[in-house]
Amino acid sequence: MTNPAPPLAGLHVVEVSSFIASPLAGLTLSQLGADVTRVDPIGGAADVHRWPVTADGKSIYWTGLNKGKRSVTADLRSDDGQRMVQRMVADSGPGGGILLTNQAGRSWMSHETLSALRPDVITVEILGRTDGTPGVDYTVNAGLGFPQITGPTSHADPVNHALPAWDVACGLYAALAISSAVRRREQSGVGAQITLPLEDTALSIASALGYLTEPQVNGHGRSGTGNDVYGTYGTDFATADGGRFMIVALTPRHFRDLLELTGVGDAVAAVEKALGADFGREDDRFTHRTVLNGLIAPWFAARSTADVAAALEKSSVLSQRYRTFDEVVADGDLSTNPMFSALDQPGIGTFLAAGLPAAFDGEHYTTGPARALGADTPRK
Amino acid sequence: MTNPAPPLAGLHVVEVSSFIASPLAGLTLSQLGADVTRVDPIGGAADVHRWPVTADGKSIYWTGLNKGKRSVTADLRSDDGQRMVQRMVADSGPGGGILLTNQAGRSWMSHETLSALRPDVITVEILGRTDGTPGVDYTVNAGLGFPQITGPTSHADPVNHALPAWDVACGLYAALAISSAVRRREQSGVGAQITLPLEDTALSIASALGYLTEPQVNGHGRSGTGNDVYGTYGTDFATADGGRFMIVALTPRHFRDLLELTGVGDAVAAVEKALGADFGREDDRFTHRTVLNGLIAPWFAARSTADVAAALEKSSVLSQRYRTFDEVVADGDLSTNPMFSALDQPGIGTFLAAGLPAAFDGEHYTTGPARALGADTPRK
Repeated sequence: MTNPAPPLAGLHVVEVSSFIASPLAGLTLSQLGADVTRVDPIGGAADVHRWPVTADGKSIYWTGLNKGKRSVTADLRSDDGQRMVQRMVADSGPGGGILLTNQAGRSWMSHETLSALRPDVITVEILGRTDGTPGVDYTVNAGLGFPQITGPTSHADPVNHALPAWDVACGLYAALAISSAVRRREQSGVGAQITLPLEDTALSIASALGYLTEPQVNGHGRSGTGNDVYGTYGTDFATADGGRFMIVALTPRHFRDLLELTGVGDAVAAVEKALGADFGREDDRFTHRTVLNGLIAPWFAARSTADVAAALEKSSVLSQRYRTFDEVVADGDLSTNPMFSALDQPGIGTFLAAGLPAAFDGEHYTTGPARALGADTPRK
Repeated sequence: MTNPAPPLAGLHVVEVSSFIASPLAGLTLSQLGADVTRVDPIGGAADVHRWPVTADGKSIYWTGLNKGKRSVTADLRSDDGQRMVQRMVADSGPGGGILLTNQAGRSWMSHETLSALRPDVITVEILGRTDGTPGVDYTVNAGLGFPQITGPTSHADPVNHALPAWDVACGLYAALAISSAVRRREQSGVGAQITLPLEDTALSIASALGYLTEPQVNGHGRSGTGNDVYGTYGTDFATADGGRFMIVALTPRHFRDLLELTGVGDAVAAVEKALGADFGREDDRFTHRTVLNGLIAPWFAARSTADVAAALEKSSVLSQRYRTFDEVVADGDLSTNPMFSALDQPGIGTFLAAGLPAAFDGEHYTTGPARALGADTPRK
């Protein structure tokens, strides 16, 4: 049996966007089989040259987030350009009528304007702050509390995340909102006006995970724990030759295996008794983690990275050597992973690029390369 | 006109899950209108008492991620318990036949077993590592490279993220996979066997954002930049009374306004000329950021947090004072945000909880509280 079509085949999405969240949403919809056209001003949006770049200045960033999309450019300040985009959204058949943008407040592509041309239109506007004012991942994150609990406990100042996690989550929420709204439209014929602030993405996740409930219910928020995992037993250990491993013992079995491996079962049992603790409970393992860390660390410190890796391989405890991006590539993780395939990206080169992480019936959907800016602009 | 039904109304999802990614997927589907039943072993899964907890030990974490779901418990090692779950998935009407789980490898709820009972079943299995072995957010992250570029540049050791960003992304991909697969099933009648490794989630995002392309194309990955934003001008500054602000100047206009605000336009112009730089380009602003930081910092250091906040309020530059979770709550952000509403969660208390960050036609979908463990278990 041949695999069925990708789940979002037949959809046509017009994306007027820039930066991360909105282009990632379009990329994800494209991976799921939608036909996505990114529209940019002539010469490109503010992100067209964004770093990282190749040695000759071509944007790895731009091509990475626009894979598999058509590229149309237009003078978005002119009536002609605006009318063209409106028609692209409105006249795109039963699977069309979908606008994705992070450029809110433009009346010519507002939900009101577009729904007058096509009543069942689905629009998604990604905003910055909840109140509609501009905000980006790093400002939203600074305002929310995570930088205050990130980083070494000896470091008093806030530490930003490196991954723009809120942009990523926001882009995935946007793709989900479109996919869900399409399902409803196909059932009932109604469109949707969807607004999605980056700040609300962050607040919603922080609420679901309890970070914003603790101050309300317990009277105080969480403190930083450095590289120790909050609420269970997990931390990092250095080896004799400068390697470092992240270790997580989520279950009593993981923890017993870690003690057996490191040979400190008797010492830990003595401490457990002396403290009146029960290390079968993850909260007790967390509460007394500094003592446990101290008992376990010497085993790692006395061994080479290779010996530690070999020993952990045979244990149930969850573990991972810290690696750099260079090492991930050099270790061959990409070439052995079926999600990755060779992509020939004009201007950048040929490299291994990832498809959708969710495999459908064993298949990782991939897209082609990014098109050159404006390559699909209709000729007059 | 009354608003139409939520976009995933009519769906029935059975969730056999624990920890973060899978429960977050179920919560998100529930927010979008699906009827979600979480199934746990009798007494609860490994996450039933997980921190954060209230003063009397009730899990804020568990209730936060299971809001709006039914709760069924069963002896999942018994034939009866397994058969009950199979029937819940198979006999759930046209919107049913959906299993979401992070507990792969159980043949009694495998796609093969369930599709024999219901050919159009949609199953999503969230895995740890790509090869199917266990992995959690903190081990996946350690292996990928982000901790090596997080944290103060003066700190050589890797820094874990505080937010389990890969769990969050994985949960949202899972919800999107289900929503998309449902759309296809309603179009064509086919189900889907979906597998989604947490590690592939992280690798796919790292690939799309260029982190894994740089080593392949440029021969080396990215280095850490501390709290400076990579590739543009953004950093943090301390005020006279110990406050700290994140500042991002994405566009030439933002940067000009920042120079005007801080009164260093002439000095920056002199440096620009001396260095042969063009600070109208974000790559030049990034390359010479240490010099720019040094010129701009004294303005912040000489002023109180309140004065800095008032001045930034009038500027176009993107800015945000770093806050703790306690301050976010104390500042009233939740009570003025329409995404939040009062939730009376038995065992926890009444507090403001977030709904879905994407508002549909102005409405933030919310769910009720989490049910008590096993409250919806069918009586024999």
